[in-house]
Amino acid sequence: MSGRIYGEISGYPVGSTFPNRTHMAASKVHRPLQGGICGGKDGAESIVVSGGYVDDEDYGDEIVYTGQGGNDPSTKRQVAHQELTLGNAGLARDQLDGNPVRVIRGAGGDPSFSPSTGFRYDGLFRVVDHWRADGKDGFRIWRFRLVSLDNVDRPPAREETGNGRRVPAVIQRLVRSSALALKVKQLYEYRCQICDTRLETPAGPYAEAAYVRPLGRPHDGPDSFNNILCLCPNHYVLFDAGGIWIGEYLEVFDTATGRQVGTVRMAAEHGIAWGHLAYRASLHT
Amino acid sequence: MSGRIYGEISGYPVGSTFPNRTHMAASKVHRPLQGGICGGKDGAESIVVSGGYVDDEDYGDEIVYTGQGGNDPSTKRQVAHQELTLGNAGLARDQLDGNPVRVIRGAGGDPSFSPSTGFRYDGLFRVVDHWRADGKDGFRIWRFRLVSLDNVDRPPAREETGNGRRVPAVIQRLVRSSALALKVKQLYEYRCQICDTRLETPAGPYAEAAYVRPLGRPHDGPDSFNNILCLCPNHYVLFDAGGIWIGEYLEVFDTATGRQVGTVRMAAEHGIAWGHLAYRASLHT
Repeated sequence: MSGRIYGEISGYPVGSTFPNRTHMAASKVHRPLQGGICGGKDGAESIVVSGGYVDDEDYGDEIVYTGQGGNDPSTKRQVAHQELTLGNAGLARDQLDGNPVRVIRGAGGDPSFSPSTGFRYDGLFRVVDHWRADGKDGFRIWRFRLVSLDNVDRPPAREETGNGRRVPAVIQRLVRSSALALKVKQLYEYRCQICDTRLETPAGPYAEAAYVRPLGRPHDGPDSFNNILCLCPNHYVLFDAGGIWIGEYLEVFDTATGRQVGTVRMAAEHGIAWGHLAYRASLHT
Repeated sequence: MSGRIYGEISGYPVGSTFPNRTHMAASKVHRPLQGGICGGKDGAESIVVSGGYVDDEDYGDEIVYTGQGGNDPSTKRQVAHQELTLGNAGLARDQLDGNPVRVIRGAGGDPSFSPSTGFRYDGLFRVVDHWRADGKDGFRIWRFRLVSLDNVDRPPAREETGNGRRVPAVIQRLVRSSALALKVKQLYEYRCQICDTRLETPAGPYAEAAYVRPLGRPHDGPDSFNNILCLCPNHYVLFDAGGIWIGEYLEVFDTATGRQVGTVRMAAEHGIAWGHLAYRASLHT
């Protein structure tokens, strides 16, 4: 058990400002005087987004945040690889446990969303994804996608439909994806392509559809039949979080030991592009 | 593979109206001339909510819908038990597969949300829960909770906080629940209380927290330590969808065969109230 303080700090509502890190640390909204992440491998309770890393991307409701380490504070450049330890491990743990993360923006961050001076508490976010990538400066970094828990307040982006009206883009995508996912699950009769498990419920069998190269930026995987696997929920979690990865000949490897622990069964009419598998494998290993 | 048509029908945007069921059937928005559910055990594509069942509850963005069968159309009363077959099985399958359901409201439904004459297509909904219950007329019915896919457009209900401002109620609940869930998962070191599986990822172990008596209306289970189990994702799905149920002595029973297939391991400092287990078991068996 940890001494982490998750969620809102009483007396400091969204929009609270702090002139400097000493005041912010005293409030407990973000406790460290220096680090951008307040956390360890048991979880992370808060982050500061203040333009310290060239790879950070701030979209307001959504932030692609660079992990800590390997950064030269004077030039803000990466000078070494990052590891999934300390605060980085904490943010990954937050994704697994669903812990809420306090996000503080500081002057120096994206001018559209950041205060002009000092620091501002901008609410609770959820870590929805994490992956390894090559940073702009040529070193491996860890990246975390955080989405505001408040974003249910704001209308989603909209796209035009054939019949001249607008429906939320997110719904369009969702309906399209679920039809493809269904096709793959039916092809395998809801059996896991890794362990052959089929979960039986009174309403029939259950399986997950896993996108190999993930949808959405920055991965931009295709929403296609040949980018989807049918997995049981346990193998879905392992695949999604990088506990296992799939090799060129459909071998299943355990990430921690490097050992082959299985093989992906493929129907004759189904194939996953090797490029998608390689892309996926690069995200966690 | 089925001939189901999921999602929006081109040319019939949200708000389209129909004078009668013949016109609506011709549009394909809801194809049957009589039934409230267009579907079978492979899934359901649309439902009509028009006050035909005394147990229906309409909250606009959320509908608690009564399954089909056992209903006397002249009195709208239940006269027999309902089974998880035909359209009822279809709605349950939609929940498992994530299929979108077209919702049509008809005159005769809740006056706050229904058209005064004919029928109106009110958009796509998601089935998020289904369970058995005793209906108002004393017969067993199946109930389905549907939530609008559009509801991201509308602000959630808000509740007052100690510091005099308002945060979305849904976020408050979420933060509270995730802290309790974390406590239970840590107690079991992320091992499934049924099969002892612990999923290992580069960010550490992963498990699900399962509420035994579900939160939210109409179940109103408590958000408490003694109402949560630590399960692997596969057993979480089986438990949640009623593929297994847990007996008074923590036996795990397979719903289909009635056979005991395991036992729930309990830490000395943890216990689940028998009432919660009995309530949960009643939802699917």
